[in-house]
Formats: sequence, structure tokens, C-alpha cells
Amino acid sequence: IVESRLSADSIELGQYDHYMQKEIFEQPGAIANTLEMVTGASALSAGLFGAEAEEVFARTERILILACGTSYHSGLVAKYWLESVAKMPVAVEIASEYRYRDSVSLPGTLVITISQSGETADTLAALQHAQREGLTDTLTICNVPESALIRQSKLRFLTRAGPEIGVASTKAFTTQLAVLFVLTLVLAKQRGLLSTERESELLAQLRHLPAAIQRVLECEMAVRHWANRFAPKEHALFLGRGVHFPIAMEGALKLKEITYIHAEAYAAGELKHGPLALVDSQMPVVVVAPNDALIEKLKSNLQEVRVRGGELFVFADRDVEIEPADGINIINLDDHAGLLSPILHVIPLQLLAYHAALARGTDVDKPRNLAKSVTVE
Amino acid sequence: IVESRLSADSIELGQYDHYMQKEIFEQPGAIANTLEMVTGASALSAGLFGAEAEEVFARTERILILACGTSYHSGLVAKYWLESVAKMPVAVEIASEYRYRDSVSLPGTLVITISQSGETADTLAALQHAQREGLTDTLTICNVPESALIRQSKLRFLTRAGPEIGVASTKAFTTQLAVLFVLTLVLAKQRGLLSTERESELLAQLRHLPAAIQRVLECEMAVRHWANRFAPKEHALFLGRGVHFPIAMEGALKLKEITYIHAEAYAAGELKHGPLALVDSQMPVVVVAPNDALIEKLKSNLQEVRVRGGELFVFADRDVEIEPADGINIINLDDHAGLLSPILHVIPLQLLAYHAALARGTDVDKPRNLAKSVTVE
Repeated sequence: IVESRLSADSIELGQYDHYMQKEIFEQPGAIANTLEMVTGASALSAGLFGAEAEEVFARTERILILACGTSYHSGLVAKYWLESVAKMPVAVEIASEYRYRDSVSLPGTLVITISQSGETADTLAALQHAQREGLTDTLTICNVPESALIRQSKLRFLTRAGPEIGVASTKAFTTQLAVLFVLTLVLAKQRGLLSTERESELLAQLRHLPAAIQRVLECEMAVRHWANRFAPKEHALFLGRGVHFPIAMEGALKLKEITYIHAEAYAAGELKHGPLALVDSQMPVVVVAPNDALIEKLKSNLQEVRVRGGELFVFADRDVEIEPADGINIINLDDHAGLLSPILHVIPLQLLAYHAALARGTDVDKPRNLAKSVTVE
Repeated sequence: IVESRLSADSIELGQYDHYMQKEIFEQPGAIANTLEMVTGASALSAGLFGAEAEEVFARTERILILACGTSYHSGLVAKYWLESVAKMPVAVEIASEYRYRDSVSLPGTLVITISQSGETADTLAALQHAQREGLTDTLTICNVPESALIRQSKLRFLTRAGPEIGVASTKAFTTQLAVLFVLTLVLAKQRGLLSTERESELLAQLRHLPAAIQRVLECEMAVRHWANRFAPKEHALFLGRGVHFPIAMEGALKLKEITYIHAEAYAAGELKHGPLALVDSQMPVVVVAPNDALIEKLKSNLQEVRVRGGELFVFADRDVEIEPADGINIINLDDHAGLLSPILHVIPLQLLAYHAALARGTDVDKPRNLAKSVTVE
């Protein structure tokens, strides 16, 4: 009885107007549930990923991540984490590209698939393609137990985001990121690259993550104000650098999916190699501006946009010093969250897309032309 | 005397209205010049890339390509070639991202930089970053002798495209591709993956490449007709699959750079994961449709676009069977060119951008906000 009541709750709207809004606000809980086995323990263990995980990780020399859409973006974030913290070389590939191309399969490769539904046709076919190529060490990160990807993978970590109804994925994305971060730490630890002290520190940050997301969600009113100014636009450029470049990609995809505004993301360093030509007063530019080592570079990119008449909408950490000015709008989040920063910075971008869609009157939960799970090619 | 006359010729417009147009039409000659040492020989040799090349290639286990903008796209094409023909694992990275991130540097890595000018600031800094990481086997492909990249690389292959004046790169791109194809064959040969018969066959195709490009250029009038219909649009989607996905990216970049139309490229398999929401009658969709193994998949993507009201502009090989119909416009090139197909398929996309810019009255050779060589960060 308890079980079915929980299940009914999880698909009812309650106080929310749309599933997407509900799912955005469920993220603190979704991440807490997903990480329950991790944050409850005093130390990390490979076993979180399955009985054979320690053995598989011991022979892993490189990682190949296969995914589509939003899940592809979580894979791109993971590449930055895994290479920098676990010193593990990572390739991330669009599943529909990988499955049809003639690639090089090397022993020691761990193939990771990521999918909310676990039934994404191209991702499943890409996994099978990899297996036929002899890559049998496989791990899936998905949100549905008993799904095809779970059944066909040696290792797995289930995100416990609960049912995701809105077509535009939100809580599935951030829970995937949380799991990929845990994987990074587990691999780093097994490879002797994580001191006990650092492990405790990062576990503490993970425990704090739901509360940190809760605080970011408080920016909703400010984002809604921006969204109303976004609503009449037909274009937007999203900029990020480093591990936040895929976050800019995800922000652009959210906006595209539910508002039909043509949003495109660029690594900020590529601005001068083309997209700067598009910048004028009709092209709002959204900037993901965490207070990391790249912030000074990013500030110089902002200047380039501003002098060409582009209006800037900057999501900055509180400790970033950028003064609001004519054409420079800033929403400050909390202080820089270190390695976990991408998980926090995607939240306001989800809210921006949601409120811009409301202002435009589009169908938030069922955008035109799109299906929730792409189970056909 | 002869030398200075040639040099003057090469920077005069002659019969052309713009440098970009001239440079598009110079591509047969630019490729013939670039490949002179290759196609004149009866067999391929590593020495084409420098005295130490054979020795370096013998210890190369993987390749890392670093570049920006258009040159980044040529690197992406090369990844498909190198992995499929030479069985060499390849990572391609935006130089401004690589130089600032904490990556994994493995012995046996050949670092390839690609740049028209050889002075691109981020590419040069990325090369130096790789060298500091201990990656000292380096090869550059660039168009300017004595440039910084040439001076700082162990191996080099100079594209002989002649001076490129138009800001939007055209002949530099296709000559880079020609060199990357030669590199693919040289590596395949040295690794025992290229039979003498296949080598002769591919050398013959390379010798024929200038003539094949000449034939593609004959589609100019048809493309100009399309360009006039493109000119009033503010958006475009470019689709490709496999080795032609980076060609779709390059086509979108050309359009963006000189017409300020917001063009974006997608791997066609990703359509259903987001961009399909953008498709309506105001979003023309350009499709790169070679007659390769992916053509049936691509046709099904075309259907998806068509039923959502998107108007299709398809560049197809002559032997692809797609019937023109309401909303489906087709320009047929020659028969499918096999491995060299991407070099041919980019030509009509260059022409489309050029003629759309003329129709919109923008400054073709000096688009707003952009410089020819990005020699500052």
C-alpha cells in the first residue's frame, strides 16, 4: 500500500503547473535518493556499480561513453571529470554516429551507455555494436530498472530520479551527472589518485549537493523575469568554457526543445572563429560563468559580445566580480562549488527554458515533434 | 620576374567579384599544387611529412588533433578516415578547450595541429601545452611556410593553396582535407593495411580529384538559384551523417560567417533528440546526402523533416534515388566519390553561403566582427 501511494504521488502534478517544473524542483530529492548508498557510507567502493565492478575497473585503461541528446551532454561533462581527477582517457560519442562507423576498438575499454529510459534505440544499438567489436566491459547509467540497457550491461548504476514525464529531461540529467561524478571518484580511488582526506571532503560535498541545488532553485523569480525578455527572441547563443561548455550545450538544447527558439551553444574560445558574426542586438547571449580558472578568459569573451551590441545574460558564481551594466544582466548563484559546479549551473538554464516556454505559450511537457523516449531510429 | 608576376596574380581578383568566389574556384588548382609531390610519385612515402616522419609514425599509437573553427572541421573528417582506413585511434579537440583543461597525455601520441595561417593563437598555445605535457611528436598542416606552427613542429605538410584573402576559409579547408587523406594512406601503408593495388587505386582517385572538383563547381548556377530562396531566411539546419557530419558543420559555419543566417549543423541521428522541435516552414534544412551506407537512414530523416513542414535542400550524389517533390529540392552531384566524397560535398555548401551572402548584400570577404587569422586569444 505504501509503495503504490508513493508511485501515485510521483506522477501527480500536485502544486506544480507542469511536469517539467515539478521535475526541476524534485532535483534535490532525486539526487539525494540516487546518492543514498554513496553518501550513507563512510567511504566509496566500486561495488556501487555491481558485483564485478572492482575487477572490471582494475583492467579499464580507457572509457568510451555512448549516448544521445541530453545524456550525451552528461557524458561530455564526465570526460572533463574523468580525465582530470581519475586520469582516465575518455572518448564520448553520439550513439547514432558510433554504431555506423568503422572505429578502432581497443582492449581495456570500458563502454558506458547513458539513457534516461534505458531503451533509446541508437544507444542500445551502439552498445550491441561495441559488444560485437569485442568490448564486453559495459556499464550503463539509466533511470529505469529492467530496461534493455540494464539487462544488456555487465555493470549498472540506477539513477533514482523517479518517473520523468516531461519530454525535456531535467532530473534525469543531474542524477546522471551525480552518478558520473561518483564513478570518477571510485576510479580515482582505485587508481590510487584520491587521498582519504580528499575522499571525505568530496563525499561531504556530495552530501551537501541536494541543499546546494535547493539554494540555486531560489533564483527562479529572477530567471522568470529574464525569461519574459527572452520570449520574443528567435535566437540565442549559449557560451561556456571547460566542464561548463557541455552545460551551455544542455541549456541551449532545453531552450530549443520547449520554446522553439533557435539556441546554439559554443565553447567560448570558438567565438572569434565564426559565431561572433551572428552577434547583434537581436541575439541574446547566455553565459555560464563559474568562478573557475577560466573566468578571466570568459570575461574577455563577454567584452567581445558586448562591444558588438549583444545583450548578455550571465549566470555567475557569487564570488565572480562582474558588474551589471547596460546590456549586461547578471544572476549570482552561490559561491563556486568546485568540481560539482556543472550540476548546479544547469539548474537556472532549465528554469530559463521553462519560463520562456510559459511566456511563449508552447506546450512545455509535450513539445512539438518530440517524443519522450526515442525508441526507434 | 616570373615569380613576382605569379604572386601578383594570386592576390588579384581577375574575373571574380570577390576573393571568396575566386578562392572557391581555385580549389582544383590548389589541390593539384598541394598534392603535386604525392600524385607525381608512383607510391606513397612517409617522407612527404618530413625527414623524421617514418620513425615518428612507427611509434605512433594514437593521434590527437588540435584546431579551431574550419580547421577543427577538417580534423573531424580526418578522424573518420584515420580510424576506418589506418585503424589509428583519433581524438579531435577544440584548441581553446584543450589548452586549459587537465587531460591525459599518453606516450605514443602524435599531436597534429591544423591552421590556415599557422599563427592561430589558441592552436599554437595548445601545441605548446601538449609539448609541455611530454607530447613531442608533432605534425602541423598549414598554408604558410615559416609560420609559428611550422617552426615549432617536428613534422609538417604545407598546403599549397596560395594566399587566402576571404575571411571565410574555403581552399585552405579542402587542401587540408587532401593532406589529411594522404596522411591516412601513408599511415595505413606503414601499418600494413593498404595493399599495393588499393594504394594505386586511391592515388588514381587523388589524381582525379581536381577534375572532380571542377565538375562539382558546375553546379554554381543551380546553387545560386537556391541561394536566392535562402537569402530572406534567418535560420537553417544542416544535416549529415558519418564522415559528412563535419561537412554539414562546415557548411553551417560558412553560412553563419558571411550571411549572418543562424545556421546550425546536427548529426542526422540526433534530430529526434531535440532539433526536430525547431523544424517548421521557416527553417530550411540543408542535407548532405552522399550515396554511402547511411543513405537509407538519411532518407528516413528527410521524411521526418518533411512531414513537419520543413523545406529540404538536398545535395545528393547522382546515384542517390530521391525524387524532387513539393518541399524537396535536389541538386545532384556526380556519382558517389567513395572516401574522397567529403572534399567534393563541401564545395556546393561554400557556393550556397557565397551566393546567399550576395543576395543579402553582406560583405562577403570581410564579414562583420571576424578577422582572417585569430592571432589573439
